[in-house]
Amino acid sequence: MSNANTNAAGDWTQVDPKVRRRILSHTPEMMVVEVEFAPGGYGPPHAHPHLQSTYVKSGSFDFTIEGEMRTIREGDSIIVPSNAVHSCESAGGGGLIDVFSPAREDFLTP
Amino acid sequence: MSNANTNAAGDWTQVDPKVRRRILSHTPEMMVVEVEFAPGGYGPPHAHPHLQSTYVKSGSFDFTIEGEMRTIREGDSIIVPSNAVHSCESAGGGGLIDVFSPAREDFLTP
Repeated sequence: MSNANTNAAGDWTQVDPKVRRRILSHTPEMMVVEVEFAPGGYGPPHAHPHLQSTYVKSGSFDFTIEGEMRTIREGDSIIVPSNAVHSCESAGGGGLIDVFSPAREDFLTP
Repeated sequence: MSNANTNAAGDWTQVDPKVRRRILSHTPEMMVVEVEFAPGGYGPPHAHPHLQSTYVKSGSFDFTIEGEMRTIREGDSIIVPSNAVHSCESAGGGGLIDVFSPAREDFLTP
């Protein structure tokens, strides 16, 4: 097992004034990331080859994948296929647990 | 996107008297599964080729991977490499959010 696969959460990275993330655990093949949105937080459309699942830890999110929007709430989850364009906004704020496979190496580089 | 990738949780499957699971979302490539342990619940050692991440939604778990035990608590996560033997027990009970890649097809067959 990689040393990086610990249960000690990493430091928060402020993505923008309303969104921050921290890595919870990772190996080269998989990565668990917590993302917090302040009210009005918005993740603009983007895509990556990594598979992604998103689990709603708290709050409510309007999550759009390839133009299809659905509202996901605490306890819901959704899967983003490889290279699918997706975006996310949270009017009231909340927290997500994202899992990527393979790991988002770009999140490891400061 | 597969029709199965909805935010409607599936029915609970009772794994044994103290452990139950339900599928939250899935595509062929990835699957999100909620697992609930009653106090004393135990998942005996097993292995599968699928990558797995485990996020602790509530409670505390003694999680053993390839003979290495660590206690993970609410908000912690851990990654199980492909084919690694792992087991899990929860003295006090709790809930996990497991993500598998690819999907656990064996969970889809009644």
